[in-house]
Amino acid sequence: MTDALSRLATTIAARKGADPDTSWTAKLLARGPEKCAEKFGEEAVEAIIEAVRGDRQKLASEAADVLYHLLVMLAARDVTLDDVLAELDRRDGTSGLAEKAARGTP
Amino acid sequence: MTDALSRLATTIAARKGADPDTSWTAKLLARGPEKCAEKFGEEAVEAIIEAVRGDRQKLASEAADVLYHLLVMLAARDVTLDDVLAELDRRDGTSGLAEKAARGTP
Amino acid sequence: MTDALSRLATTIAARKGADPDTSWTAKLLARGPEKCAEKFGEEAVEAIIEAVRGDRQKLASEAADVLYHLLVMLAARDVTLDDVLAELDRRDGTSGLAEKAARGTP
Amino acid sequence: MTDALSRLATTIAARKGADPDTSWTAKLLARGPEKCAEKFGEEAVEAIIEAVRGDRQKLASEAADVLYHLLVMLAARDVTLDDVLAELDRRDGTSGLAEKAARGTP
Repeated sequence: MTDALSRLATTIAARKGADPDTSWTAKLLARGPEKCAEKFGEEAVEAIIEAVRGDRQKLASEAADVLYHLLVMLAARDVTLDDVLAELDRRDGTSGLAEKAARGTP
Repeated sequence: MTDALSRLATTIAARKGADPDTSWTAKLLARGPEKCAEKFGEEAVEAIIEAVRGDRQKLASEAADVLYHLLVMLAARDVTLDDVLAELDRRDGTSGLAEKAARGTP
Repeated sequence: MTDALSRLATTIAARKGADPDTSWTAKLLARGPEKCAEKFGEEAVEAIIEAVRGDRQKLASEAADVLYHLLVMLAARDVTLDDVLAELDRRDGTSGLAEKAARGTP
Repeated sequence: MTDALSRLATTIAARKGADPDTSWTAKLLARGPEKCAEKFGEEAVEAIIEAVRGDRQKLASEAADVLYHLLVMLAARDVTLDDVLAELDRRDGTSGLAEKAARGTP
């Protein structure tokens, strides 16, 4: 099921440098990393609001927007999903109480 | 490679309701959805800053934090990663110029 | 010069409950506190991006947007600018090193 | 009452370049504009959460934090409160329905 995310990452990366008139993603990437970061920030705010409100379906929908715009922001800086997942994998050993020292007080 | 994300989502979901003293994730979830949303927001801001600065390694690291805290925020509201990926999958047909109408002007 | 802010706060508060067709502020307030919070979040993200980029004029412009949308978000919950300034004034005695204990590590 | 804000802006600006050990504000400014932007972002997120929750007193308190950290972020880039208020003042003529064209759809 996480294949959906890999597929989306591949599609987004392929649109970098494509004609902005052919795709919304290409158009967004053509506007540069700052604009992509701005859009990611807007979606992050909307997800926060739905998390506080507590509507599960809207939260799932906003989280999908967050993932999409995170991938676009990463593509704008040539960072791949695999780079990020490798970083998560590397941290995976850091679990249980050990996390606490690594991450600080919640 | 996206298995890392599924594994992380499973680990996080399993910690909901666990003794807060046994894990940083359990402690964070025990503080409620608003606190989880706050932490997600902090990481989103840090990722935005690194995207603008342009350091690829720091951006990958912040993006990993964003994914972790997104999953925690979702778990706090009992939304699964699969719920979100299903939403992404559903949108996958909406591609190319068709996206534009669906998403509005970038 | 801070009179500009008081005047703006008064204008915004007066538009709460006004016909949404008569003013952009009235229309925004009519959409509720969540929508006002979302707009404030968008402007906060834009200000963060300009602060990192370092263009002073754009930062001043984005900060003006932040102040406007902060006031709208407050008005949506019937919090006045004076409520907020009274809180700042109350903290004013907390200065120098004393701040550190009150606010935690930067 | 808006004098509280002017006074705070003056105090913050005066701490730029001061010994970081003498004040929390000096310490934060010494860490640079990106760290100041990050802290502003954290407070913006907290204010958004309280605006959605609807606790007026907590919202007033978070809004005070937003104003303080906005001023610190501005000081980090040598932008003054007067620069921002002049921008607000300049826009003041743009009112009623005219705002709509200037600002776009809410």
